[in-house]
Amino acid sequence: MRRNLVLLFSSLLVPAALATTKATATTPAPYSPAPSQYVDPMIGTANFGATHPGAQYPHALLSVSPFNVALGGKLNPFDKDAAWNSRVYVKENQFLTGFSHVNLSGVGCPDLGVLLAMPTTGALQLDPALYGSTYQDERANAGYYATTLSKYQTRAEMTSTQRSGISRYTFAAGEAHILLNLGLGLSNESGAMAKLVSDTEVEGYRQIGTFCYHSEQARPVYFVARVNKAPKVAGLYKKMPAVRAVEADWSSHNQSYKPYPNYRQELAGDDIGAYFSYDLKQGEQIELQLAISFVSIANARQNLAQEQAQFAFDETRNKARMAWDALLSRIDIDATTEDKIRFYTALYHSLIHPSVISDVNGDYPKFGPAGSGNGNSTGKSPRYSVFSLWDTHRNLHPLLSLVYPAIQTQMLQSVVAMGTEAGYLPKWELAGMEKAVMVGDPATVMVNDSYQRGLTDFDHAAAYQAMRRAALTPSSVSKPDFNAKPGQQQAARMQAKNPIRPENSDYLQLGYVPVDDEGPFDGSVSTSLEYYLADFNLAGFAKALGHDADAASFAAQAQLYSRLFDSALTKGTGMFRPKQKNGQWLSGFNPDGGRNFEPTSGYIEGTAWNYRFYLPHAMPQLIALLGGPEAFRTALDQTFDLKKFDMANEPDISYPFLYNYLETDRPGSRAATSLRVQQLIQQHYGLTAAGLPGNDDAGTLSAWLVFSMLGLYPTEPGTPNYTLFQPRIKAARIALDPQFYPGKIIEIKQKTSGQLLWNQQALPTPFVTHQALVQGGVLELSAKD
Amino acid sequence: MRRNLVLLFSSLLVPAALATTKATATTPAPYSPAPSQYVDPMIGTANFGATHPGAQYPHALLSVSPFNVALGGKLNPFDKDAAWNSRVYVKENQFLTGFSHVNLSGVGCPDLGVLLAMPTTGALQLDPALYGSTYQDERANAGYYATTLSKYQTRAEMTSTQRSGISRYTFAAGEAHILLNLGLGLSNESGAMAKLVSDTEVEGYRQIGTFCYHSEQARPVYFVARVNKAPKVAGLYKKMPAVRAVEADWSSHNQSYKPYPNYRQELAGDDIGAYFSYDLKQGEQIELQLAISFVSIANARQNLAQEQAQFAFDETRNKARMAWDALLSRIDIDATTEDKIRFYTALYHSLIHPSVISDVNGDYPKFGPAGSGNGNSTGKSPRYSVFSLWDTHRNLHPLLSLVYPAIQTQMLQSVVAMGTEAGYLPKWELAGMEKAVMVGDPATVMVNDSYQRGLTDFDHAAAYQAMRRAALTPSSVSKPDFNAKPGQQQAARMQAKNPIRPENSDYLQLGYVPVDDEGPFDGSVSTSLEYYLADFNLAGFAKALGHDADAASFAAQAQLYSRLFDSALTKGTGMFRPKQKNGQWLSGFNPDGGRNFEPTSGYIEGTAWNYRFYLPHAMPQLIALLGGPEAFRTALDQTFDLKKFDMANEPDISYPFLYNYLETDRPGSRAATSLRVQQLIQQHYGLTAAGLPGNDDAGTLSAWLVFSMLGLYPTEPGTPNYTLFQPRIKAARIALDPQFYPGKIIEIKQKTSGQLLWNQQALPTPFVTHQALVQGGVLELSAKD
Repeated sequence: MRRNLVLLFSSLLVPAALATTKATATTPAPYSPAPSQYVDPMIGTANFGATHPGAQYPHALLSVSPFNVALGGKLNPFDKDAAWNSRVYVKENQFLTGFSHVNLSGVGCPDLGVLLAMPTTGALQLDPALYGSTYQDERANAGYYATTLSKYQTRAEMTSTQRSGISRYTFAAGEAHILLNLGLGLSNESGAMAKLVSDTEVEGYRQIGTFCYHSEQARPVYFVARVNKAPKVAGLYKKMPAVRAVEADWSSHNQSYKPYPNYRQELAGDDIGAYFSYDLKQGEQIELQLAISFVSIANARQNLAQEQAQFAFDETRNKARMAWDALLSRIDIDATTEDKIRFYTALYHSLIHPSVISDVNGDYPKFGPAGSGNGNSTGKSPRYSVFSLWDTHRNLHPLLSLVYPAIQTQMLQSVVAMGTEAGYLPKWELAGMEKAVMVGDPATVMVNDSYQRGLTDFDHAAAYQAMRRAALTPSSVSKPDFNAKPGQQQAARMQAKNPIRPENSDYLQLGYVPVDDEGPFDGSVSTSLEYYLADFNLAGFAKALGHDADAASFAAQAQLYSRLFDSALTKGTGMFRPKQKNGQWLSGFNPDGGRNFEPTSGYIEGTAWNYRFYLPHAMPQLIALLGGPEAFRTALDQTFDLKKFDMANEPDISYPFLYNYLETDRPGSRAATSLRVQQLIQQHYGLTAAGLPGNDDAGTLSAWLVFSMLGLYPTEPGTPNYTLFQPRIKAARIALDPQFYPGKIIEIKQKTSGQLLWNQQALPTPFVTHQALVQGGVLELSAKD
Repeated sequence: MRRNLVLLFSSLLVPAALATTKATATTPAPYSPAPSQYVDPMIGTANFGATHPGAQYPHALLSVSPFNVALGGKLNPFDKDAAWNSRVYVKENQFLTGFSHVNLSGVGCPDLGVLLAMPTTGALQLDPALYGSTYQDERANAGYYATTLSKYQTRAEMTSTQRSGISRYTFAAGEAHILLNLGLGLSNESGAMAKLVSDTEVEGYRQIGTFCYHSEQARPVYFVARVNKAPKVAGLYKKMPAVRAVEADWSSHNQSYKPYPNYRQELAGDDIGAYFSYDLKQGEQIELQLAISFVSIANARQNLAQEQAQFAFDETRNKARMAWDALLSRIDIDATTEDKIRFYTALYHSLIHPSVISDVNGDYPKFGPAGSGNGNSTGKSPRYSVFSLWDTHRNLHPLLSLVYPAIQTQMLQSVVAMGTEAGYLPKWELAGMEKAVMVGDPATVMVNDSYQRGLTDFDHAAAYQAMRRAALTPSSVSKPDFNAKPGQQQAARMQAKNPIRPENSDYLQLGYVPVDDEGPFDGSVSTSLEYYLADFNLAGFAKALGHDADAASFAAQAQLYSRLFDSALTKGTGMFRPKQKNGQWLSGFNPDGGRNFEPTSGYIEGTAWNYRFYLPHAMPQLIALLGGPEAFRTALDQTFDLKKFDMANEPDISYPFLYNYLETDRPGSRAATSLRVQQLIQQHYGLTAAGLPGNDDAGTLSAWLVFSMLGLYPTEPGTPNYTLFQPRIKAARIALDPQFYPGKIIEIKQKTSGQLLWNQQALPTPFVTHQALVQGGVLELSAKD
């Protein structure tokens, strides 16, 4: 029902011509005009997908999302304060306490989710537990969200630009209020300042940070907010601390919310906010704009001035939709309506993070270990943030490299500049802060992979210097105190001499990371496998830059994976296994250890099964280690058939494509890839809120779907190939970026059977190179000959 | 023991010539050279005196006081959070948690007491309950305080200028820290921001306000603080809120203090602070400067630059002492050392409030009901704040008018400007905010009294307009909801049409404030008596300005006091009694009701006894009402003999002097005044911490002692006379301000008996006019002829 409304609404309001690539006489009519109409932001909001359904502009600093994870009691089974919760909105919840203006999409750790606006009616109520409301008639589009607050019969609509939001509230008659709550938020940081600079404008900041509880790093997000009508009263408010005994007898606001009407200086505190109060006629609308900056209040104001000079809700909404259509229409697909919703929603989710953090004037927070102490800088090119590289290096950045090379180039430039600022490339970067979540050296992989795909417009020497430093700086950490809180354990890792590869001394000496000093978030096997891949990529980059000796050395290091492989040929487990410094396997091996994020020795976010085939840079060798093609195929089948495969996490997401590596030895194997991929799409990617298999991981699971539906997948980061299989779509046209590949289009056609063809030439293997693809042409794909 | 140390210390360090009025060949050697040496700031720190022992500059915006009213458990019997506590330091307590930089002296309500610096050693500890310490070897002088923190063997010394403090910490060897705690404070407001602008400088603000729990008004006090040595680490910190369930498992700082080392952006919250960490050698000293402003951080920085360009502790200390000596030496007394301590400590306490609030550049917060919403202004003359006028109109401002007319003129200008800004003169003003504590219209009394004493350099028309508005604007409040908190009850009073005289409609119609709609802090009898006195003063001011019709009207209103007097001649109680609107006395009269601040009908901060003789503008009529001189004398004696007199509060503090009014009818009566005064001084004014009879009330009890020891007292606000009696001092020389009275000196000589002489002429009554006194001359005073 909801989705039907969405489609109806979109089709009524969007003239197709506005939102699609301009059609000329020589280009055919699009399969999917105005593809934003197929985006359903509700997909991913249940089943821990962790995307939000709010108003979102592509790669935006800011979004405006309903916030329903607090204070709801039984109405909100998922409460942010009683669980690890990385979501501002959960479809299963029902109690809404506002609309948050700074949100992450599809991440696994709580942060941001702050600056909550809320319209209310009746007497001024400042306690969110009391002013929160259930809601109905939700409508979510690309760049637009609306709902009706049941308690207030108030319609709340919102849309946004890259750095600012605008909300339109349609009120019932009587007393009405717009609250800006700076206390409530998803972030585990708190504390805020607000100042009314006029009756209609409030400025301030709100603390964010401590992502994943790991890092102590935090910083303020600055904001400016405006209403388009002068209120009867504008004020600030604050939750007062608890007092006792006689003090409690006297205090008017003992652990309760105290309003400061007409207050005009700075108000600071843990739980504060601002309010604008009105007397309104039935149906009267008030609009609220809010812009942010991670640099300063002045920049937030400038962002607002440049992106929303006036209050123009409908125009702003149209601009957001046009921005989406401009990006989404780069891939024009012929498919069922349901598959168009699947595809364009996945592509939409792939175009949110990394997101722009620089202000309209180019200012951005510098990157480094000191968090807020790094200061700010400025530049001409947009600076990106929210790099979840352990996830996104696998497919999201290859997708951007192929279809959006200008954007990926800006991301490369951002990552390399961070390396210059901090000495190391980022691992998990959020708002200029290294959060050091997950393992490995994924930026090295990401940068080299893009370079190998022809995106070379960045400072190679700077990139190489930072990568090489991470690869060669010795670093030892001792086993953490397991009684300490995770954040304290992590702190020791981050203070290592080499924070990117904190276990590098052992790795360089032994050729693997031993399990001996492993912390709960280290995963010595997982870390080793990521290092091998990083070293393979570093070797490739070194070679490209002419550092041949380095290249040979790193290439050799990348081949030491066999030291962790417990070969079945020697009566071992046939798995990568945790090994001790003394060369002995760790006893008590359980290949299922580590399921569902349970702590286990050797692996992080996965089991030995999930890491069994994770050697993307050395697939022939892996096949040999596992005993040859037959054994490899059996092992792969086992993984799926015994339900050891996890579609919801990254280590194994390339496994369905690995049958293709057997095609030369065992022709027909590629049919298995096509079958597995179709099954996984059917099983895990739906059209409901639970339509993502799990946490979207900043778009990684969505990028998987985009590639998988198109019939190609980048299985080897650093090797610019794509493996090919039967697409889900009937046909597609990928319009390559004319600045990079003028006039080049990749056409994809599904056929029920027959050889894989590239420009009508049969492909000898189910692989095609990036270099070939970007020349443009027609790819004809099937499951089998 | 302690005092001996003080004297020794002072005499060693202060060359007398530095600190006294320059002696010429024609002026005699002073009785008390360098009188600051006699100031003992410990006096008043027990027995609820509410003065602080810290470093204090005359009329200063800032002071630096030990803070020992929090978190001490059994070590601190007086805890700020479990009692109505207006004191930052209580001699009876033992657990110190820092040195507060913004303090009130001798007030009855909690506020300020914020910006707490604390030196510690050992591992960094951010919880004041854990880093607090007992202390020893206290030394308190005018402008200087020092103690040794037992836990850290660290000597903490402090001194100050008008707007800035400097502390010198002498540390033991090892790890040391200087904390600036922005959470802990006496104020019931909380919330702060801090930002490290360099390794050695922090800026920010801290919320203050809600004085007396009555008013919602609050505002930030801005600060800049600097250390004189670059620390190993500079950081901020914050107490993190409570989380539960899984969140609690993950959070490293669950309801505990979290350090943010090297954090360089704004940090805001309820309980935050800054720290500077060092590794020190034994005996190494670090100095901390801190300046404030109520206008802006930039102004705080400018205040610091102008008043303490360098770190120069000893020089700053000497300047503070010289500033004190310059003021204190205006009254040079010949007395015992003990009486010199009594006298100069009282004079010191009389020269703290009202205090300067304007910054060095002239900026100050404007006054008005909107608190922080009033904005700022600037001026050439200093702007004063902390006007506790119900107290200070009685004797403090008359003292300033006589001895420090330049200062009193600036205060007059401040009060009149406030009237222009807010429409009404202030009643209880704190930091630009009207706190509406206590009753009556005391600014009218204060302004006219000064005018009558010849201080006329202020805007008469503006003053008159504001006074007249308060006197004539009708205003009715309904009986408050006694179930509501005091602050909520008070809010209704403050929102009255006439906030200064919220019961004015009834008063104008009935000639008295009826008890019917009385709130718990109204005191209908007390309020009426204050209004009569105010109207008498307004009549005097009107007459002086030529508004004769107004003058007659106000004078007539001032005579309606008999409507509240229940005459014994008609078998009444002989008291001023609460009366209802219908003209009937309120039944259930208890003349002792209202003792010890207990709520009672009709009276505030006093009993019927305490208000029985409070008709200073109509003493002859009061004597008649009470039945003539004999009955009056009997009633006065009863008051003292039955212990109905309260030396610790203001309504009755002029009563010992009232015997003098009987001198004409019953010669010899003035001996009773002399006796009572001597007895009261002996009984209530000591040399220990308990040496004040009660709350100093912004210097009012101290000004009482100054006048009483000199042998004169201003019993009739608005009538510029002093009544005379036997002084406590042997002799005194009051050097009048040469800008007002060039070359004039008042000499006072005590004699055991004989007529009261003024310039060797016998005085016909025990009174002398202000006009006569300021011509200079010799006053010879005795108890009897």
